[in-house]
Parts: sequence; C-alpha cells; structure tokens
Amino acid sequence: MRDFGIKITDIIKSVLMSEREFLHEPRFNDEEVKNLKKCIESTFVSTVGQYVNQFENEIATYTKSKRAIAVVNGTSALHVALKLSGVGEGEEVICPALTFVATANAISYLNAIPHFVDCNEKTLGIDPLSLGNWLDKNCEKIAGNLINKNTGRKISAIVPMHTFGHPSEIIQIIDIAKNFGIPVVEDAAESLGSFYHGRHTGTFGDFGVLSFNGNKIITTGGGGVILTNDINLANKAKHITSTAKLSHRWRYIHDQVGYNYRMPNLNAALGCAQLKKIDDFCKSKRNLFFKYEDAFRNFNGISLFKEPPFSRSNYWLQTLILDRGLENELEKILEYTNDNGIMTRPAWDLLPNLKMFKECPKAPLPIAQSLSNRIINIPSSAYLV
Amino acid sequence: MRDFGIKITDIIKSVLMSEREFLHEPRFNDEEVKNLKKCIESTFVSTVGQYVNQFENEIATYTKSKRAIAVVNGTSALHVALKLSGVGEGEEVICPALTFVATANAISYLNAIPHFVDCNEKTLGIDPLSLGNWLDKNCEKIAGNLINKNTGRKISAIVPMHTFGHPSEIIQIIDIAKNFGIPVVEDAAESLGSFYHGRHTGTFGDFGVLSFNGNKIITTGGGGVILTNDINLANKAKHITSTAKLSHRWRYIHDQVGYNYRMPNLNAALGCAQLKKIDDFCKSKRNLFFKYEDAFRNFNGISLFKEPPFSRSNYWLQTLILDRGLENELEKILEYTNDNGIMTRPAWDLLPNLKMFKECPKAPLPIAQSLSNRIINIPSSAYLV
Repeated sequence: MRDFGIKITDIIKSVLMSEREFLHEPRFNDEEVKNLKKCIESTFVSTVGQYVNQFENEIATYTKSKRAIAVVNGTSALHVALKLSGVGEGEEVICPALTFVATANAISYLNAIPHFVDCNEKTLGIDPLSLGNWLDKNCEKIAGNLINKNTGRKISAIVPMHTFGHPSEIIQIIDIAKNFGIPVVEDAAESLGSFYHGRHTGTFGDFGVLSFNGNKIITTGGGGVILTNDINLANKAKHITSTAKLSHRWRYIHDQVGYNYRMPNLNAALGCAQLKKIDDFCKSKRNLFFKYEDAFRNFNGISLFKEPPFSRSNYWLQTLILDRGLENELEKILEYTNDNGIMTRPAWDLLPNLKMFKECPKAPLPIAQSLSNRIINIPSSAYLV
Repeated sequence: MRDFGIKITDIIKSVLMSEREFLHEPRFNDEEVKNLKKCIESTFVSTVGQYVNQFENEIATYTKSKRAIAVVNGTSALHVALKLSGVGEGEEVICPALTFVATANAISYLNAIPHFVDCNEKTLGIDPLSLGNWLDKNCEKIAGNLINKNTGRKISAIVPMHTFGHPSEIIQIIDIAKNFGIPVVEDAAESLGSFYHGRHTGTFGDFGVLSFNGNKIITTGGGGVILTNDINLANKAKHITSTAKLSHRWRYIHDQVGYNYRMPNLNAALGCAQLKKIDDFCKSKRNLFFKYEDAFRNFNGISLFKEPPFSRSNYWLQTLILDRGLENELEKILEYTNDNGIMTRPAWDLLPNLKMFKECPKAPLPIAQSLSNRIINIPSSAYLV
C-alpha cells in the first residue's frame, strides 16, 4: 500500500510549499561569516581564544547552568561526564535502548557496559515507572553500591535522554536515581532550547550534555558542551578535556591521562553567532509543529508527536508515529518519501539489536521496540517557517 | 648569569625586527575567509561536505600517501592508528620519552602501556642504535609475539616521532621494527612539509599521523589526519572515525564501537586554504633558520638545531640547544625571554617523569634527559620572514 507514502509526501510538500527538503539544515546569515572573519583576523582559531570563553559563558547563561565546558562533540562530552561521574571498567550504565549509538559508545570507551531500559510513548524517553520496577526487581545495594543481581556488576550511572528535543520525565527519573544512589548524566544533545517545568534540560542531572553537530538546532560544525552546577567537577572537566596540563608559563606538566577534547575557537565563533538565534529557531520550529499538526489532523493511522506535559520542547525533529498495527508501512513510507524529494528517517535501530551490544543487559523493551518500528522524522529545519 | 637571556633576546629581536613575538602563529589571508564563507553558504559545516573530501585528497596528493583520513585532531589520529595496528589492552607500545603527552595518552586510551626509549642528538627522535640494542637485550619472540622479558607483556607497536618537524631516522627505525615484527605508527604531527630521503614523513610507517592544531605549520583550528598506503586499513579508519555506521539510505546500523572523530567540514575549509601555502611556509621557515643561523653563529655555548642528514625539514619550530654543562641556564633564559616579549619554550618534560607514566617501562634515557634540560624553542612563525 503506497498510499501512506503518497499522502504523507503530499501533505509535507503542501505544508513546506517545496518539492525537496532535507531532514534538518542549519540556517546561517552574515552574523556567522562576520564571526568567522573576526576569528581568522585574531589568528586564534584553535585551543585558545575568546570565542570559546564567550560561548561557554553564553551557554551557561542561557541554560542557567553554573558552568559550561565546550568540547569537540556530544560524544566526547558524554565520555568525560561519565568518567567524572566515577564510571569504571566492568561497571554498568543504564541508558535508553532507543537512542543514538554515541551513548553506548561513550560508555564503552570506559570499558563499562550499557544496560538498556525501556521508554514510554508520552515522552519517547526513559519510562520512570518501568525503570523503578526494573531496578527494584533486579538490583540490590551491597556495601553502598548498586549491584545488578543477574550479572554481579556494579551499576554506576544512568544516562536519560531527551528524544528529538522533547523533555523526558527527568525529575522523576532523577528521584529514582537518587533512591538507588547513582549519578545522572543527562543527555540533552538534542534539546538545547527545551525546558521541563520551566528549567532547561541538561541542568537537572549531575552533568548535562549538549551537542552542536550540523543537524542540531544550532551548530558549531562539530561541538558539544558539558553542563554542571558543581564548580569542582567543572574545573575537572575543563582540565581533562585540555590534556590535563597544569598551568605554568612554559613547562609542559600534565598530572593525569587527559584528552584533546577542547572545542577550537573557530567552531566556538560559529556557535556564538548561532546561539543568538536560538529563540527564533525555537519559535519557528514550534510554528512548524502547528502547521504540521493542522495538516495531519485528519490523517487516520498517523499522529504527530506533541511536547509532553510540563514541557516546552525545542521541537528539534518533528515526529510522525504510525498507529500500532501499521508497522509494515514504515519501510514503504521511508522509501516513497525519500524517493520523492522529502527526506525522512526512522528512529534508531534499538541499541541492543546492534551486534556489539547484543550481549549487554537489558530490561524488557516492548515500548522502545514498538516505537522504533513506528517513528518517522520529517523535515524540521527552523527556516521552513 | 642573566647574560644568556639578554643576549638571546637581543639576537632574536634583531633578527625578527620586532619587540614581541609568540612562539608560533598561523598566517591567514582572504583565502581562508573566502573558503569559510563558501562553507557557510553551502550550509554543510559539519560531518558531511566537499571540503573534507578535498582536504583528504589534497593531503594525500601532497604527501604521496595513498589515503588520508581527516579527523578532529592528532591525538584522535594516533588513537585510531594504534587501534587499527592491533594494539590491545595490557600491551606495550614503544615511544620516545621526549615527545608531547598525546602519544602516551593515545596509548593509554587503549589500556596499553607506553614503553619509553631514548633519542639521539642528531635528529632529536628515537635513536635506532640504542633502540635495537634495548630490544635485543630485553625482548624475546614467543609464539610470534614480541615479549618484554622484564614485564612479560607483549610489545605491539612503535610510535617514532619527527621532533619539531625534523625527520628522525625513520628508515632505520622501521628496519628494526620489521626485524622485531611490530607495526609502525609514524607520528608526523609536527612534520607536514618534511621529507626524509625525498619521501614525505608519515608515509614510511603502516600509519602516519598529522596534526593541524593552531600551533602547527598549517592549521584547521583543530584537526588531524591518518595517512596510510593500505586501502583496507584506510577504509577501516574512515569507518570507525565516523561512528562505524553502515551505509544505508535511512537506517542507523553501526557494526562496532565507533568514534565521533571525523573532521567537520568547516575546519576542512580552513585546511584547504592553508594547504595551498605549505610550500611558501616551508620556504619562509627555512629562510628564518638561515637568519637565525647567521645571528647565532658566534654564540658560545649555544647552537641552533639544523635539519639532520638526508632530510629536508619544514623547520616547524626553531630550536636552540645549550651546550652540556649549561643546563642551569635553561630556566633563567626561559624567564628572561618570556619576560621581555620573546616567547620561548623548553622541550617537554620527559613523559616517564609525569606522575601517571612513572611506573611505565623505559630504556635508559641519558640523551633525552640531557636534551630536555638544554632545548629552547624560539619564535618560528612562517610570516616572520
């Protein structure tokens, strides 16, 4: 049945008044070029420069986080945040099954093991209820550590994620994490501009992580930020992301194994110009949601995902969800839309289905598996409205 | 005795006809701004874009390497090259004691252990003679593996480095590595534009590594390249530096733990403009060497380091070497020059002296230790001539 694909393509083209659209493109104007030119003229394009400081300060101000540390991408931000949360070799880290592979990769860099949990349909993020039940049933506290009874391994952190920009129930998730005594690295890679109960995503956990990859709401080319309200942890993050070099006028003394993760000034220059537009971008994306909502209102079998309760979403990626029972339409819709100028994407394959994570511990994943077969992201660029 | 500092400062100022100079600054003109502007206009600033392909092709052409894979920095290039060389957990990797910390860090990321060896005064790089003797005395072949008799651990690779741009005796070092059956990751981070026996550094080993950090001869803000003549290894490097995603029109399938190490298109745009100038930069730096050589000719107690035999160096960092016996002058010279507008730097503290590498295996390091107390890098920017 190619009808779904045809109808969806037609609706999207009529909303966008366009025959060809990518999933998500950044929007630039003279502001970005001006900053890049200034950066070049300063000759400071690399690991030192005022744009890095400015970008960190402006992100901290915008999110109301005490500190923001700019790094090369969201993956490196996750890696460092997990390391500074104390995640060690052979330990487990809870994360959603339905998320981008970077989360499980960052866990793996520490020789730790992802432990996948389910999400819910309301937020697309970790479901607090099933998380609590799962941990209750499968874990115990031994000598102050949370131990997975099935594997005998310590569970040392949790990484909730705000899927496609939509806030998950982060307050409830953190309550559970606190009860079980594990730190929270809040993956806000997709949710710059999204708020839960009026507070910016990424500022609830012990650490938050943002991404400024080219497909995100604002971009630095490649880039990420580590958010934290703990000044001590912020200083540590800054230190180990810049090769753990001690401050000295000329000597090269490093006091631990460090990373070359600092965001170059050139990329921060782009970020400073982009960040000025975040409110406009959020507004455009919200308006695009309303247009899509109107256009898909009477479409049987498909619903447009709407920001969860108590949330203000950045609506980073607009999301269609097929009704249950229509899973077989997914590939056909993807094929038709992509063949006809409208770029669409499914959700990620569930991480525990990837071969390198097949043996990792996981909770039952009925909702994540079902959603993974029913989600279609459609063109979402801020400039479309 | 402050005389050394005063005299050196005076000489450098007279050569540079300037009262204040950094150690190394990049040089830009309209070309860089033009590329960045074009990159912004294309909207492809991130993980996809034509500048990444162009930069990789042009670096491959310039170095005469079959393939070049652009990544976020030299550290990530080392990390991936070592991983693809088969370095595993608990194994040892031979590297110079006198080098930047990134080498030992990259080894540590694989949970492998750096094993430090000495250099020689002729090249500042690994001394082939003492390397061969050290391996002869301390290692044995067991079941096809090279084993360190003192630790019982496998030695799985070697990372020679071309210090300050000057080619080390890479052919002799590779001969020894071949004899002992270990792969070579050639750290050419500092030596873009440097040749040994007419062949570009970084193309002798199984892998080569370049860096385009802001202080290097050309810069991409932050960036690096993995060089290899092995197409199969090149494809693997490309794959794992771009999250190990399999090619598919819409599905997100990753077949192993991968890295988010790809160079953003924005940084490659800068690199393409910079690379056009490499020959001019090398020429300027060579001329600067001649000027310094002339100015320091009659300076008792100090010599200016000259490219080793059979080499054509990029003269990335100009290097003064104090005579033996004058080690106590080093700190005083660094203090006076830096206090008086002329930025200078010592060589790195020897890596086995850093606290996280204190317990690592090492050969006797008399030359490296002596050089580390006698080297002073002086202002070296290409625009100075």
